[in-house]
Amino acid sequence: MNERVSTARDWWLGFDIGGTRTKAGVVSDDGGVDRSHLVETGHEPFSLVWERMLAYADETIASEGQSGLRGVGIAAPGVIDPAFGVRNLPGKVPGIEDFPMRERLEDRLGVPVRCINDGAAATLAEWRFGAARGYRDVVGLTIGTGIGAGTIIDGRPLQTSNLAGGVSFGHATIQAGGRTCLCGNLGCAETLVSANAVVGRMRDYVARKVPSTITDAYQHDPGGITFRTLVEGVDAGDRVAKEIMAQYCRDLGATIVTAIHAYDPEVVVLAGGPMAQADHFLPQVQAYVDRYAFRYPKERVIPILRAERSDHAGVLGAVARVMQAVADAAPASSAATT
Amino acid sequence: MNERVSTARDWWLGFDIGGTRTKAGVVSDDGGVDRSHLVETGHEPFSLVWERMLAYADETIASEGQSGLRGVGIAAPGVIDPAFGVRNLPGKVPGIEDFPMRERLEDRLGVPVRCINDGAAATLAEWRFGAARGYRDVVGLTIGTGIGAGTIIDGRPLQTSNLAGGVSFGHATIQAGGRTCLCGNLGCAETLVSANAVVGRMRDYVARKVPSTITDAYQHDPGGITFRTLVEGVDAGDRVAKEIMAQYCRDLGATIVTAIHAYDPEVVVLAGGPMAQADHFLPQVQAYVDRYAFRYPKERVIPILRAERSDHAGVLGAVARVMQAVADAAPASSAATT
Amino acid sequence: MNERVSTARDWWLGFDIGGTRTKAGVVSDDGGVDRSHLVETGHEPFSLVWERMLAYADETIASEGQSGLRGVGIAAPGVIDPAFGVRNLPGKVPGIEDFPMRERLEDRLGVPVRCINDGAAATLAEWRFGAARGYRDVVGLTIGTGIGAGTIIDGRPLQTSNLAGGVSFGHATIQAGGRTCLCGNLGCAETLVSANAVVGRMRDYVARKVPSTITDAYQHDPGGITFRTLVEGVDAGDRVAKEIMAQYCRDLGATIVTAIHAYDPEVVVLAGGPMAQADHFLPQVQAYVDRYAFRYPKERVIPILRAERSDHAGVLGAVARVMQAVADAAPASSAATT
Amino acid sequence: MNERVSTARDWWLGFDIGGTRTKAGVVSDDGGVDRSHLVETGHEPFSLVWERMLAYADETIASEGQSGLRGVGIAAPGVIDPAFGVRNLPGKVPGIEDFPMRERLEDRLGVPVRCINDGAAATLAEWRFGAARGYRDVVGLTIGTGIGAGTIIDGRPLQTSNLAGGVSFGHATIQAGGRTCLCGNLGCAETLVSANAVVGRMRDYVARKVPSTITDAYQHDPGGITFRTLVEGVDAGDRVAKEIMAQYCRDLGATIVTAIHAYDPEVVVLAGGPMAQADHFLPQVQAYVDRYAFRYPKERVIPILRAERSDHAGVLGAVARVMQAVADAAPASSAATT
Repeated sequence: MNERVSTARDWWLGFDIGGTRTKAGVVSDDGGVDRSHLVETGHEPFSLVWERMLAYADETIASEGQSGLRGVGIAAPGVIDPAFGVRNLPGKVPGIEDFPMRERLEDRLGVPVRCINDGAAATLAEWRFGAARGYRDVVGLTIGTGIGAGTIIDGRPLQTSNLAGGVSFGHATIQAGGRTCLCGNLGCAETLVSANAVVGRMRDYVARKVPSTITDAYQHDPGGITFRTLVEGVDAGDRVAKEIMAQYCRDLGATIVTAIHAYDPEVVVLAGGPMAQADHFLPQVQAYVDRYAFRYPKERVIPILRAERSDHAGVLGAVARVMQAVADAAPASSAATT
Repeated sequence: MNERVSTARDWWLGFDIGGTRTKAGVVSDDGGVDRSHLVETGHEPFSLVWERMLAYADETIASEGQSGLRGVGIAAPGVIDPAFGVRNLPGKVPGIEDFPMRERLEDRLGVPVRCINDGAAATLAEWRFGAARGYRDVVGLTIGTGIGAGTIIDGRPLQTSNLAGGVSFGHATIQAGGRTCLCGNLGCAETLVSANAVVGRMRDYVARKVPSTITDAYQHDPGGITFRTLVEGVDAGDRVAKEIMAQYCRDLGATIVTAIHAYDPEVVVLAGGPMAQADHFLPQVQAYVDRYAFRYPKERVIPILRAERSDHAGVLGAVARVMQAVADAAPASSAATT
Repeated sequence: MNERVSTARDWWLGFDIGGTRTKAGVVSDDGGVDRSHLVETGHEPFSLVWERMLAYADETIASEGQSGLRGVGIAAPGVIDPAFGVRNLPGKVPGIEDFPMRERLEDRLGVPVRCINDGAAATLAEWRFGAARGYRDVVGLTIGTGIGAGTIIDGRPLQTSNLAGGVSFGHATIQAGGRTCLCGNLGCAETLVSANAVVGRMRDYVARKVPSTITDAYQHDPGGITFRTLVEGVDAGDRVAKEIMAQYCRDLGATIVTAIHAYDPEVVVLAGGPMAQADHFLPQVQAYVDRYAFRYPKERVIPILRAERSDHAGVLGAVARVMQAVADAAPASSAATT
Repeated sequence: MNERVSTARDWWLGFDIGGTRTKAGVVSDDGGVDRSHLVETGHEPFSLVWERMLAYADETIASEGQSGLRGVGIAAPGVIDPAFGVRNLPGKVPGIEDFPMRERLEDRLGVPVRCINDGAAATLAEWRFGAARGYRDVVGLTIGTGIGAGTIIDGRPLQTSNLAGGVSFGHATIQAGGRTCLCGNLGCAETLVSANAVVGRMRDYVARKVPSTITDAYQHDPGGITFRTLVEGVDAGDRVAKEIMAQYCRDLGATIVTAIHAYDPEVVVLAGGPMAQADHFLPQVQAYVDRYAFRYPKERVIPILRAERSDHAGVLGAVARVMQAVADAAPASSAATT
C-alpha cells in the first residue's frame, strides 16, 4: 500500500480532521503515504488543531523540501467549501466553521489548497488510488457512527452550489415513517445501516431481555456491544442475531439500490468498521443488489467493492481533490465531452 | 449561459416520442413553440413513426428555411444515449431500440442532433425556459403513470457512462420491503406517489368495499377513478380520502427529501397530471420538506415549484439539450471551474 | 362425511343465510347432512328469503316427521344475538336486521331455535363434527372475501354482552398504519390475508405492469385473477408470485400467532377458498407459528388444521349451537369447574 | 354475583409475588386492604420467599382470627394454574415453577386457595373493586416493563386448558415484521407500547445524538430516562418528543383496537407507571379508538378507564379470584345462561 516510487521531489500534503483526532501524511503522486501522523484533538478549539497542522507542515517541508510540494488537501466532516474550508459542522470542533483554511494555507505555503468532505474524500481515495481505479462513475459509502457518502460522476466529485451534493446520501429515506435521525429526517439509511444503528438495536434487545446469545453475553455490559457482536451471534447460530443480520442485509441492499437508481455508478465501494466482517454480509448484499437494482445494460453486474485505502482515506482523498484542481488549472486540460 | 445573439431566422426542431403519441414543434431561442404537432403512434413499428418525423422535419424546413435551423432535439422514454438514440425501452415502441436517430438525422439535415430521456427533458425544459430558470442545481419529477426524473448539476444534466444518471430516481426505495415496482425493486417512490399508485390504492379500496364517498361513486366504475377523484373525496370531507391524501403527502415529501439529500438541488420542480390539483397537496408537501430536509445554509428554503412548460416539456427539453451541445462546441466555451 | 346413522326420528334443522345465497339442511345428531338445499337470494328483501326458509322447514317436517325435530339453528353474517337474530348487517340483506327469527320460528315450530354468526358457526362445526373434535379451546378462521372468525373457549363459543366476542378477530391490527379496511380500521388481518386482499394485490401489480407471469397471463383480464393464480405463479417459478406468497405466509402466520396470544387455543382451524391450495402455504405458515408463537408447555405444537366440514359449515355450526342450548337446558347439565 | 352478608370478622389473604418484591395484605369483602406488607425478594430461592409468606399468614391469623379467614389468593407472573401455582416463569424466581402453592397452603390453613397471573389479577381487581365494577366484559392492560393483560368475559376471567388465555395479549402482533420481543415474536404490542419500549426508543435517540431536549438533558445519563421524560419533552414543545408521543398514541390505540376486536369488551382499563401521565396521552388514545374500533351498537363508546386499585392490584385480584371460587362452590350458585 505504502510503496512510494515517485520522483523524490514531488509530494503532496494531506490532512484529515476528525471530531476526536486529526491525521496527516505526505502523499506521493501514486498514493503512497509517508510520515503518517495522528493527533488526538479532543474537544479543544480548532485554533490549537490548526497550529499543530502548521507545525506538521513545517516539519515535513523541512525534511521533504519545499520545491517538491505540489499542493495540500484537507478533509473534514460537515459541509465543506473546497475553495474555503468548513462551512457547517455543528458542535464537533469549536471554531472550525468559517475558518478560511484554504486562504491561510495558500498564503503561507504558496501552493494550491483544497478542502473536501470526509465521506467524499474516502470515495475519491478509492477512485484515484484504490478499489475503484479506472471507473468514471462511483458511489462510496463509509459505514461508521453514521453513513458517510461520496459520489464521482464522469471522473469528478459531484459538486453543487450549496456544497452538499453527493455527501448527504446517508440521509436518503429508506423507510418512510421510520425512526428519527440525527439530521431530523425519518427513516434515513443512517438510522438503519450505520454501525451505530445496528449496535443500538442490539442494545435495545438486551435491555428488553430478548433471549439470545447477545443478551447472555452482554446483559451486564451493553456498552461492550459492537458490530462484531452481531457477527459472533450469527456464527453461534443465534436466531435473533440471524434475524438482525438478515434485516441489515436487506436495508443495506435497499440503500445501495437507491444509490444506484440515484447516481447510476459503475461500482459501489464500501468502507468503515463493519467491513472487517464483510464476508458475513457482503455476498447477501450483492445478491440483493443483483436482484433489485435496475441497470442498463441488463446483464451488467454492479460490483460492491471493499475499500482498499481505508487506513488513509481522508488524507488520500483530500490530496486527490487538490490533484484534480491542479490538473484542471493546467493548460493541457482536455475539453469536456458534449 | 450561452449568450448568443440569435438572428430572426434561427430556429430549432424538437421531437418528443411517447408510447402512444409523438409530439413535435418548432422552437425559438427563447423557448417559444410553433407548429406544435401531435401524432398518435399506437403500437406501430418505430420505422413508421420515424417516417412521419422526417416528413414533419421536411415540412417545417420548407416553411421556416433550412438556413436558420440550428439543431434538433429528440426526447424519448427509456435509457437514452444523447449522441445515438434509444438504448433500452422494453416493449413500448417496436424497433426503437438501437435505431441510430442522431446519425440518421445529422446525415440528412446537416445540423447537430441530440437525444434525451423524457424525464430529463422535462427538467431541462423548466431549467432553460420555465420555473427553474436561473438556478444551477435542479431536480425535476414528473408524476404520471410512473415517476419521471431529471437532474441538473451545476447547469448541466447529470450524465453517466451507463446513461441512467438522474433519470431513474423514481425508483429510489422509499419504503424498504414495500410493494414490487414495474422495475422489479420493492417500495420504489413510483409504487407510492405515481398517479398510478394512488389510483390503484383507491381501486383496491373500492374493490374491498371500504366505506367512503369514493366507493359510493365508483363501485360500478372503478376504471373511472383518477387522481382528481382523491381530491374530490378530500373536498367532500371523506375520512378515507383524507387518510390517503395524508399518506400521499408524506410519501411525496419523503421522496423529495431523498432527492434533496441525494442531489442537493436549489429547487425542485414537479410536473404531471396531479399538479393540476397541486393546491390540495403542495403546501403540505412543502411543509414536510421544510421540516425534514437537511440543508445548508440552515435558513434556506428549497422551493417546490410547479412546472410551467408541461405542454411542451419533451420538445423544449430536447431542444435545450441540443442547445447545450451547440454551446459546448462553440470556441468561446468557458473553462470549467476547478 | 355424510353417513347418517342416528335414530330415524331425531333430527335438527340448519340454515345458513348468506349475502347471495341461503343454504339449508337436515342434520343428524352426529353431523350427517341430508336434503341439502341452496337458494340464490340475490338482493331481495329478507321477508322473501324467510318465506322460502319456512317452506323448506315445512317440507322437511312433512317428510322427516315433526316429532323428531329437536331444534333449529340459523347462521348469518354480521352481529348476531343467539336468542334473537341479526342485530347488525349493513347493506347485505335488506330487512334482516331486527327480524325476530328465533321468536317467530319457536312460535311456529315449538322447538328451540338459536342463531349464530357464520364465522363462529364454521368454527363450531369443526369443533363438534370436524377437524377440531375433542379439543376444548379452538380458534377458527375462514379466509374468504374477508376473514371470518370463531372462538371456542372451554368447549363453548366465546359470548359477550355486545355479541361480537371472538367473531371480529379478522379485524385485529396486524400492520399498524396499514391499508384501510372495510371496517374502517387500518392494517386489519383482513386487509392482508383475505382472498380479496391477495387478489387485489395481484390486480394492482398487473395494473402497474410489474413484470411477472401473472401480468403476462391476466393483463387483459385482471378480473380473472383468483387466489389460485398466485399458486400457479409460484409453481411456474415466477419471482413476483413467490414474493407475494412469502408475504402472505408471513402475514397469515402473524395473524395466527396473534390469535394464539389472544385466545390460547389448542388448535387453529382454517377454512375458505384458498385452503384448496393449502399444500402451497400451510407448511410455511405452520413453521412461522412454530417459530414465533409463545406457548406453554414449550414443546407443545399448536396444529393448524384444515377444515373438514366446509361444505356445510354454516348449517352444521348453527345446529351445533342449538344443540348446546338444548344440552344446557337439560337437568343433567354438569356443574362448571371452579 | 355472590351477595353474601359477611360477618364483621370475615377476611381474605392476598399475596402478589413479583420478580423483585412480594406484597401481601389482608382484604375485606369490599376490597379494603389492611396490614399491607412488602418484602424485597431479590433473586433468592422461592423457598425463602415462601417461608416469609407463611410467617405473614401466621401473623395475620394470630391477630385477625382464623375463624374469619375465607380464602387465600396468590398472584404471580408467568403461566399460572389457578388450582396449583406457577407452571412457567423462566428465570425470575428460582424454584417457583412447579411449587404446589395451593395444595401446601390449603393443607396448612384449611381454606380455599387460588392462584392467578398478575396481569389477570390487575384486571380482576378493577372489575371487582375498581374502575370496571358493574361490567361483564372487560379487558385490562398493565403498561410496565412489558404489557400485562387480563380478560373478563361474562363476569369471569377467560380460562383455557393451557392457562394462557387472555394473559398473553401483550404479545399480539401489532407491527408485522417489527422488532423482536422478549417472547421471541416480532412486532408485539409489548415492543411498541410498554414503558420499556418507549424508554428504549428515547435511549436509542440519545445514543444516536438526535437533536432534542431529551438528548440535551440525558446524553450523559441515559439510564435516567423514564416515560415521564417523554411527557416533559412534549411539554417543552420538543419536536422529537412530540413525534415519539404521536407514535405511542397510535400504537397504543392500535393495540386497544385489536383487544376490542378480539374480546369485545364493554370497557378497557389501563394500569401501570405511564398512567400517572395519562392526561398527556389518554385523550388521543380514546380518540383513536373511537375512530378505528368497530363496535355494535354503533353509537356505543368503549371507555378507556384508568385503573383505580393499582396500589394493591395483585393482592386484590388474587383475592377476587378465590372469592369467585368460593362463590362457585356455594350451593346457591346460579345456573349458567344458555
